[in-house]
Amino acid sequence: MTIRMYDLAGANPAVRFSPYCWRARMALAHKGLDVETIAWRFSDKEAIAFSGQGLVPVLRDGDTIVNDSWAIAEYLDKTYPDRPVLLDGEQGRALANFARHYAQNVLSGILFKAIMMDLFNAIDPGDRAYFRESREKRVGSTLEQFQIAPDAARAQLNTALSPLRAVLKEQPFINGRHAAFADYCVFGAFMWARNVSSVSLIAEDDPTHAWRERMLDLFDGLARKSPRATA
Amino acid sequence: MTIRMYDLAGANPAVRFSPYCWRARMALAHKGLDVETIAWRFSDKEAIAFSGQGLVPVLRDGDTIVNDSWAIAEYLDKTYPDRPVLLDGEQGRALANFARHYAQNVLSGILFKAIMMDLFNAIDPGDRAYFRESREKRVGSTLEQFQIAPDAARAQLNTALSPLRAVLKEQPFINGRHAAFADYCVFGAFMWARNVSSVSLIAEDDPTHAWRERMLDLFDGLARKSPRATA
Repeated sequence: MTIRMYDLAGANPAVRFSPYCWRARMALAHKGLDVETIAWRFSDKEAIAFSGQGLVPVLRDGDTIVNDSWAIAEYLDKTYPDRPVLLDGEQGRALANFARHYAQNVLSGILFKAIMMDLFNAIDPGDRAYFRESREKRVGSTLEQFQIAPDAARAQLNTALSPLRAVLKEQPFINGRHAAFADYCVFGAFMWARNVSSVSLIAEDDPTHAWRERMLDLFDGLARKSPRATA
Repeated sequence: MTIRMYDLAGANPAVRFSPYCWRARMALAHKGLDVETIAWRFSDKEAIAFSGQGLVPVLRDGDTIVNDSWAIAEYLDKTYPDRPVLLDGEQGRALANFARHYAQNVLSGILFKAIMMDLFNAIDPGDRAYFRESREKRVGSTLEQFQIAPDAARAQLNTALSPLRAVLKEQPFINGRHAAFADYCVFGAFMWARNVSSVSLIAEDDPTHAWRERMLDLFDGLARKSPRATA
């Protein structure tokens, strides 16, 4: 039976931009597993109530339901141990958790400020009131005030990427010779920006730019082929 | 035959503060290996000329000479495979490299500005002219101008520690349930600050503070027992 995954969708249902859903999409592709994604909106809490919570990704694999991208990676490694591993060993797992927090605490924080209004415009009109209210409460200002200019975002990102840049001068992927779940965690943040915004945030001669290109090429261009919102 | 290690020493030869030497000291202890450290000064290039370069740590294990803390970790894992592993597997190794660059590019950059004058005063008087000239050239200002106030350093460090803090809320060590080389890379930066300066940079309720305390306790308090420079 095909695995199904609830995946955050924009006003254009083909546009998928959740960084957490992208982690799971890449993890499924890493395992060579087919998935049928189901377009989901912030307001569709009832559609995933069966998972016992209100966030995507939610995976349904036969009778098993798993939510949370990290739990999905662990589930896939446990259930499909003969496929390429996502989180390898105690050290690989623990350190991927560090890369995950670097992605969501450091990189996503900057990207969020850079793409805020593009993100707002890309989501479904029915989601916008919820999005504005919840995010303005979280950041403590209006979305418009929270947004920063591309130059400021590029400067902040340039600094924040320094450890990643140094690593990617020495190895092709964050996980080493081959991409794995730490790569997908960081890449998810960049797919979020890519699929809602046309702002260019990384210089083309930056090693992290070349890494992102390699990530876009993985699995027959899975991420590169994904539609982007048009303004 | 006892392993010997050339270890950067201060005006007080018992004060050892090189972050790279601390990585190696902790790695040796992790392997349960005894080491005889040899106090070394920046000006003693001749003493380590046998290693073909001019930086410490330099390890001599029988007929084998290894310099560079990362190479030392790899050497120890290869030579003593039955002892606890420092860099475990492809993913563990690749991701430890990310933690290493986070330590030296992000954390050490802030610590350097915070402890600059304490560091200058802790090193041997014979090393100070070399240190001032090489470091002022590197940072593009006088040491005195480069130094930042403790409050500024605490604020910068508080931001920079955000991914580490998040990880250490979920697991006791960066490497997971047990400390290993990624922990030693990050810890080395903090030992550098601890052994030359009395400035307090991390709040006591920060999870990174508790982690540092656990690190100080490892191997029968190896790091905690190490002498600190007195102003």
